[in-house]
Amino acid sequence: MSAFDDLMAYQRRTEALAQIAGRLSWDRETVMPRGAAAQRSEEAGALSEVLHARRTDPRIGDWLEAAEAEEPGEVGLAQLRHIRRSYERTQRVPCDLATRISSFTALSQGRWAEAREADDFAAFAPVLSEMVALRREEGAALADGGDIYDAMLDDYEPGAKAADLDAMFGALRPGLIALREAALGRMPAPKVSGRFDIGAQMELTRRIAEVCGYDMTRGRIDVAVHPFSSGSGSDVRITTRTSEDEPFNCIYSTMHEAGHAIYEQSIDPDYALTPLGSGVSMGVHESQSRIVENQLGRSRAFTGWLYGQLRDAFGDFGIDGPDAFYAAANSLHRGYIRTEADEVQYNLHILMRFDLERALVSGDLAPEDLEEAWNARFLRDFGYEVPRASQGCLQDVHWSVGLFGYFPTYSLGNVYAGCLAEALRRAVPDLDAQLAKGDMSAAMAWLRENVQRHGGLYAPRDLITRACGEAPSEAPLMRYLEEKFGALYPA
Amino acid sequence: MSAFDDLMAYQRRTEALAQIAGRLSWDRETVMPRGAAAQRSEEAGALSEVLHARRTDPRIGDWLEAAEAEEPGEVGLAQLRHIRRSYERTQRVPCDLATRISSFTALSQGRWAEAREADDFAAFAPVLSEMVALRREEGAALADGGDIYDAMLDDYEPGAKAADLDAMFGALRPGLIALREAALGRMPAPKVSGRFDIGAQMELTRRIAEVCGYDMTRGRIDVAVHPFSSGSGSDVRITTRTSEDEPFNCIYSTMHEAGHAIYEQSIDPDYALTPLGSGVSMGVHESQSRIVENQLGRSRAFTGWLYGQLRDAFGDFGIDGPDAFYAAANSLHRGYIRTEADEVQYNLHILMRFDLERALVSGDLAPEDLEEAWNARFLRDFGYEVPRASQGCLQDVHWSVGLFGYFPTYSLGNVYAGCLAEALRRAVPDLDAQLAKGDMSAAMAWLRENVQRHGGLYAPRDLITRACGEAPSEAPLMRYLEEKFGALYPA
Repeated sequence: MSAFDDLMAYQRRTEALAQIAGRLSWDRETVMPRGAAAQRSEEAGALSEVLHARRTDPRIGDWLEAAEAEEPGEVGLAQLRHIRRSYERTQRVPCDLATRISSFTALSQGRWAEAREADDFAAFAPVLSEMVALRREEGAALADGGDIYDAMLDDYEPGAKAADLDAMFGALRPGLIALREAALGRMPAPKVSGRFDIGAQMELTRRIAEVCGYDMTRGRIDVAVHPFSSGSGSDVRITTRTSEDEPFNCIYSTMHEAGHAIYEQSIDPDYALTPLGSGVSMGVHESQSRIVENQLGRSRAFTGWLYGQLRDAFGDFGIDGPDAFYAAANSLHRGYIRTEADEVQYNLHILMRFDLERALVSGDLAPEDLEEAWNARFLRDFGYEVPRASQGCLQDVHWSVGLFGYFPTYSLGNVYAGCLAEALRRAVPDLDAQLAKGDMSAAMAWLRENVQRHGGLYAPRDLITRACGEAPSEAPLMRYLEEKFGALYPA
Repeated sequence: MSAFDDLMAYQRRTEALAQIAGRLSWDRETVMPRGAAAQRSEEAGALSEVLHARRTDPRIGDWLEAAEAEEPGEVGLAQLRHIRRSYERTQRVPCDLATRISSFTALSQGRWAEAREADDFAAFAPVLSEMVALRREEGAALADGGDIYDAMLDDYEPGAKAADLDAMFGALRPGLIALREAALGRMPAPKVSGRFDIGAQMELTRRIAEVCGYDMTRGRIDVAVHPFSSGSGSDVRITTRTSEDEPFNCIYSTMHEAGHAIYEQSIDPDYALTPLGSGVSMGVHESQSRIVENQLGRSRAFTGWLYGQLRDAFGDFGIDGPDAFYAAANSLHRGYIRTEADEVQYNLHILMRFDLERALVSGDLAPEDLEEAWNARFLRDFGYEVPRASQGCLQDVHWSVGLFGYFPTYSLGNVYAGCLAEALRRAVPDLDAQLAKGDMSAAMAWLRENVQRHGGLYAPRDLITRACGEAPSEAPLMRYLEEKFGALYPA
């Protein structure tokens, strides 16, 4: 056996154990008895210790050095790059700091949940302050003299730089605000009415997921409070949520998570249980969920087909024809919550979080001043006031668990989805005719071939550039949003 | 920290990881997508390697020695006994042999399934021969000069000796055969008719499980091909099976598995994730499932209540009154399959397997002669001929995966259930009046107090002796069966 083979065999077992950890989380969010939480957290902790010990094993360093010298070819070198990247990360963060972060995070998330429940930002501010300090310490260790926020960002979007994202998002913001101003307060969108049987919604949503290309023999759909996708390789599960009052939440949550899951399912099977065997970055992952949910799933053509499916399943539900249904599926509406936002305002949510978290990390914004800064920025970008902290700066779990550098990947995903959708339309000229028949197969085959199958082989930005034939920019997303919402809400 | 504390902290993590392995099996049998089998087996293998490494870690030996010297009290000493027992087992079996057994078992089970499918014992005989040889080698290592079969038995029923079981079972056999002879071919039992909606069966079976004392906040019920119970502590799940043609399979599979699960749920919470935190032996475990299923669940009093429940759920289902229902739930019937056998013939199934497997292990029976020996013994004990190997010696998975010494614990469980049921009736004189109202709470409280809460604290036989006030014997089971089936099938 070569050093490369030894290392890959070792790594494969680590990946297998990581899959188990993921499945344990799936279990907790879907089927776990409610009385099992304390024991489960001890179980997950034990597995997490095993994974940590494996990932910091000093043999990895020796194997890496020897394996790199063996010149294992393009794919092999890409595997080694991923392994080295993650190994060096563990080497840079002192063990004691990692432990402090991990134990503080458990506490912090609980304190955030209490503060949100009580609508009391002041109660959370000192916790946030400590979390920022801990993560800055970690970021400084990772940055090794470079920019701390970039080091954080790199954890979720390898190679991305805050300055580039700042330019990209800065170019988006005026257009997004203009669209929001043109639309809000005008033309209330058609609304569905009636009761939507949960069983029938789940049946329909499973069919729609399969239409999108989700392979149910290597996955399953369950209900969870917060929809998610989990797993890689041949066991990639998704969850959705349901409401008896309207069917959009279930359908579009499913399409979003199916987009993530199809990405995982479509990676070259040769990469299974290797570092190349899962999505390459959060941004690229989000691009796959968003293009399925939005550019394809909320298109006029596909919503026309979907309208027929809903009529078949539920009869008359208060929407008169496919045009009204298209408008309902694409309504811009007032709201405070990121996860409930429409395609336009969603990005405004992200842009403000990106700016605020950079200010927190740089020290320009004191944690105790976050609520005030949040509310002022929200009023500026959205045009209405935040009524309370639970609908403002306490709405998201991310910062409470130390995720700084994560938020921007959501909008970067939207930007990538915009680029890919333009390239896809060039490659599949009759896309709308296919979508109008509920046929996503050509679209998904193009994504599989040009993006998904590569797994972690190429760097995120390179992957999108290869797929689109040009470097990614925000322009395609802006063109798409202006064309779509300009027509829906004409001046 | 004392050595005892260090050891227990280490052990606790191992137990937590073992719970995860159990949950992974649950997942495989209930919710896993069918395309995920290969990846899952790799995941389970990786976790199993981790567990093996932890269980053979030489630090355990040092900790044990130091901890024993610390005199940690009765409970502490019981913990150390369990840990030492399992550690010494790993020390006695050479690593190379354990690996050979483990890889041969994967192969062997597949070959058994094929042979059973093809009804071809000759194709399985060489595999069985190799498995017997491997397990004899292991047994000899474990026995360390003692009896090989006893060493195997000890894995499932610590402290049990084949000679004692042989005497016990020998005393049962004539009475069982006499009951079988008196009953078969006479008085066909009443049969249910109609279609039994699966959803309604699952709803009813959940209610019945709760009536038995199963805590659904720390468990759940799903459907699986072969019902099982899994997990310890606060996450103990059961599965059942359903048939649209009759409701007994679902109800009694559930009560059986609930009996196992309630045992696990009722162990002193202080023992959770320690060696004392799960059922003490297979025999005691089976006694808890059997007493719930049979002595309580198939009693005239409880079936009277159950009949009312089924009428409420399904209307008229072809059984005219509680007496006919009691007879239907307790019919003795011809059949070849152990898992479908009634209370009388089930033990005849076990007794023959116990004798045959001892002969295989001692070498008195050549593996290639098993089918002939099986069929001859079956005819002698059951009075009718085995038509084919899949309904004869190929029906059970046990031997194909090397489980020798496991079968007798089933009948030992029935013997223990007989003893406990007599003691319970002494302790709760109006038991039948309670069961007739569907109230099992006093019965289950007695079992919890006298058996279940102790977990692994006492040796199996001591535990039953303490609970019953006398050493266990087969006499109570025989009295129970003769009284019950003598009345159902009068001479």
